[in-house]
Amino acid sequence: MKISHRIANINGGGSDGWDVFLKARGMIAEGIAVTELTIGEHDIRTASPILQEMHRSAMAGHTGYAMVPGIDDLRDTVAARVQARTGVPTTRDNVIITPGGQAALFAAHSAACDPGETALYIDPYYATYPGTIRSVSAVPRSVPAHAENAFQPRAKDIAAAAEKGAVSLLVNSPNNPTGVVYNRETLDGIAQVCKAHDLWLISDEVYDSQVWEGEHISPRALPGMAERTLVVGSMSKSHAMTGSRCGWIVGPEEVIAHLVNLATNTTYGVPGYIQDAANFGLKQGAEVEAEVAEPFRRRREKAIDVLASQNTVTLVPAQGAMYLMLNIRATGLSGDDFANALLDAHHIAVMPGESFGQAAAGHVRVAMTIDDERFIAALKTLCAFAAELADK
Amino acid sequence: MKISHRIANINGGGSDGWDVFLKARGMIAEGIAVTELTIGEHDIRTASPILQEMHRSAMAGHTGYAMVPGIDDLRDTVAARVQARTGVPTTRDNVIITPGGQAALFAAHSAACDPGETALYIDPYYATYPGTIRSVSAVPRSVPAHAENAFQPRAKDIAAAAEKGAVSLLVNSPNNPTGVVYNRETLDGIAQVCKAHDLWLISDEVYDSQVWEGEHISPRALPGMAERTLVVGSMSKSHAMTGSRCGWIVGPEEVIAHLVNLATNTTYGVPGYIQDAANFGLKQGAEVEAEVAEPFRRRREKAIDVLASQNTVTLVPAQGAMYLMLNIRATGLSGDDFANALLDAHHIAVMPGESFGQAAAGHVRVAMTIDDERFIAALKTLCAFAAELADK
Ligand SMILES: Cc1ncc(COP(=O)(O)O)c(C=O)c1O
Ligand SMILES: Cc1ncc(COP(=O)(O)O)c(C=O)c1O
Repeated sequence: MKISHRIANINGGGSDGWDVFLKARGMIAEGIAVTELTIGEHDIRTASPILQEMHRSAMAGHTGYAMVPGIDDLRDTVAARVQARTGVPTTRDNVIITPGGQAALFAAHSAACDPGETALYIDPYYATYPGTIRSVSAVPRSVPAHAENAFQPRAKDIAAAAEKGAVSLLVNSPNNPTGVVYNRETLDGIAQVCKAHDLWLISDEVYDSQVWEGEHISPRALPGMAERTLVVGSMSKSHAMTGSRCGWIVGPEEVIAHLVNLATNTTYGVPGYIQDAANFGLKQGAEVEAEVAEPFRRRREKAIDVLASQNTVTLVPAQGAMYLMLNIRATGLSGDDFANALLDAHHIAVMPGESFGQAAAGHVRVAMTIDDERFIAALKTLCAFAAELADK
Repeated sequence: MKISHRIANINGGGSDGWDVFLKARGMIAEGIAVTELTIGEHDIRTASPILQEMHRSAMAGHTGYAMVPGIDDLRDTVAARVQARTGVPTTRDNVIITPGGQAALFAAHSAACDPGETALYIDPYYATYPGTIRSVSAVPRSVPAHAENAFQPRAKDIAAAAEKGAVSLLVNSPNNPTGVVYNRETLDGIAQVCKAHDLWLISDEVYDSQVWEGEHISPRALPGMAERTLVVGSMSKSHAMTGSRCGWIVGPEEVIAHLVNLATNTTYGVPGYIQDAANFGLKQGAEVEAEVAEPFRRRREKAIDVLASQNTVTLVPAQGAMYLMLNIRATGLSGDDFANALLDAHHIAVMPGESFGQAAAGHVRVAMTIDDERFIAALKTLCAFAAELADK
C-alpha cells in the first residue's frame, strides 16, 4: 500500500539526531549507569496541588467533551498572562487551547502554509521543527544562526531565505538548544523581514518562564506584528506539566476562529479537567513559575563557575531555557564524535549539536535536568575529557 | 494576511449543520427549557474508579512525557481487545494511541492521502468527516448510502466513486448518524472495492460496544484487508470518556511506525495518567462496556414501542450506536424544516438529517442521551407533531 509522501518522508531521510540518546538508553537497559544530560524535561514532577485540582475537576464531572477552543476561564487566564507580559491587548478570542505546544506548532503551520509552500526556521532548531513543517506538506528551509554571532539570527540571512519564496518563519526564544534569548536588535530585524516579505511569524515561547539574563521580548509586541504573529505557549516547561499536553496559540481573532475549525477536525479539544488544572496553575502566578525554573537557574550558575575554571570548552551565552550549549571545537572533534566518545569513556550522555542542525556543529547540548551534584560532577568530567582531547 | 487554503475552506463553504443546535442553545441561554436530543454524549460521567486510577497514576509521578506511540501496557491491551473480537493477530506494533478518535481519523487520513488526492466517505456521515479530509489538504468525495437500502452503502456506488480516482474510503459501523450496523454483504462489497481500486479502508469503529441487533464485523478481519485497513477506536463512547481524548489506530506495523513519526510532530503523545486510566477501564472487560451502553439499549427498546404505535414517522433499523434516525418525509417537510418547527412549537431539539449529508434528507436524528422519561415523552410529542403536519 502506498503511504502518503507526507508521512513517509517526515524525517527528511536523514538521521533524526537521536543516535547518542538511543545508545545511552541501550546501555541503561544493559544495566550500565549512565548520566543522562539529554532530555528537556524537569527532574521534578507536576506539583501535587495542580494534580489535586485536576482530580477535583474530574470528580466534579468535567469529563465530557470540553469546548473545542478551550474553556473560557483558561482562555481568559492565558490572554491576561500574555497581555500583562507584553502590553498587547489580548482577549479569549485571541487564544485557542491545544493539546501541548507541539500541537500548537503543528496547527500554526497548518494555518500559515499550504502544501508545497516554504516555511522558514532557524538552525539550530528544536528536533521536531522540520518534521512539523513536513507534516502539513510544506517545505522546510533552514536559516543558520551562526555561533560567531552568539546564535542570534541575522535579519539579512532570514531575508535572503525569504527572497527565494516563503510564507512563514518559525523562531524560538528563549532557545532550545542554544539557551540564547533573542535581543531587541535580533527581534527588530525579524519583524522587519516578516513585514517586508509578508511572512507569518510563528514564535515558540514555551520557555518564556526561564530567562536568566536579559529580557524575554515577545515579537507579537513589536509594531505591526500582532496581526502576523502566532505565539506558541505551553504548560510543559513553566509548570512541569510536560505529560499533560496543554498549550496554546495566541494570534489574530480571525486565525483563531479558523484554528478552532481545524481543531474540530484534528484534536477536538483538550480534557476539561486538564484545562482546569492548567488554569489553577497559571492563576498561582509568576512565583510558582519561578520556583519550577529555580533548579535550572541554580545549576546554570554553578555551571558557569565550573566552565570559568578551564579553557577548552566555551559556553554559548546561557541566557535562558534548561540547556547549556558548549562549544567543544578545541577538541578537534565534531559534536557527534565528542558525544559518542564521552558516552563510551565516561557514561555521560549529551546531545551532539549536529542533532539540532549544521549551525551547531562542533557543539554539544547539555540539559540541566538532573540533581545539582551529579550535574556538576558530570560537567567537570566533560571538561576534563575535552581538555585531554585538546592536548592530544 | 493570507490564511492557508486548507483551513480557510475547511467547512467547504456550506453551513456546518449546527444551526438548529445553536438555536436551541440560544433559547436555553434565554432561560427557555429545551429538550436536547442533539448530542452524541452520554448523560452519565466517567465512572469514578477510572478517575481514581487516573489520580493514582498522576500522583505516582506519571506526569512526564509519555512514549509517543502510547504506553506499552495500553497498546497491549488494545491489541488484545482487537484480536479477541476479530481473530486477527494483533500486537502492540499494530497500535498507536491517539488523543481521541477524532485525532485518529485525522492521522489515518494523513497517512493515506497526499494533498489533492481524493478520499471517499459515505453520506450520511459524522459531521467532521469532510473537514477531516480537507484538514490534510485532500479532496472529500461522498458516496450516498440510500434510505431505500436501509442506509447500507452499496459496492457499486463506492466503485463508481473510486473509478474517478481515490486513495481511501472512510466507513463507520455502527453508524452515526443512522444507527445502522453494516451487514456482511455490505462489508464484503466494501472489501472487494477497496482491493480492486487499491484503496485504504479507514474503519471508524468508535461505537463497537453499542450493537443492539446483528453483529459488529470489523472489515480488518475480512480476507486481504488487514494490510489495507486502519481501524479507528476510542474510549469516548465505550467508557463514557469523551472528554479524556483517548483513542487509537490499529493497522499494519509499517504504517503505525510512520504514524508515530507523525505523532511526534503533531501531538507528542497522550497523557500517561489518562492512558493508565484507559488501560484500567479496558481491563475491566466487556461487562463494563455493556453497562455504559445499557441506557441506550433500554431507551431504544422503549422508542421502538412508541414508534410502533403510530404511522407517520418511520424508524431506520436501529441496530447500534446512541442514535435513532427517523424518516419524517410523510410530513412533507425537509429534516431542516421539521427540526426547526419542532424546536419552535415544542422546544425539542433534534438534528436535521441534512446536517449529515443529502442522503439523509427528510430525516431527523434523535440522540438517546437524556433520561428515559423525558426521552420517551419527547419522542411521543415528536410523533404527534409529525402526525399533525402529515394530516394538514
Ligand atoms: C522549543 C520547544 N518548543 C516546543 C516544545 C514542545 O513542548 P510541548 O510539551 O508543549 O509540546 C519543546 C519541547 O521540548 C521545545 O523544546
Ligand atoms: C462516528 C464518530 N467517529 C468519531 C467520533 C469522535 O470520537 P472521539 O471522542 O473519540 O474523538 C465520533 C464522536 O461523536 C463519532 O460519532
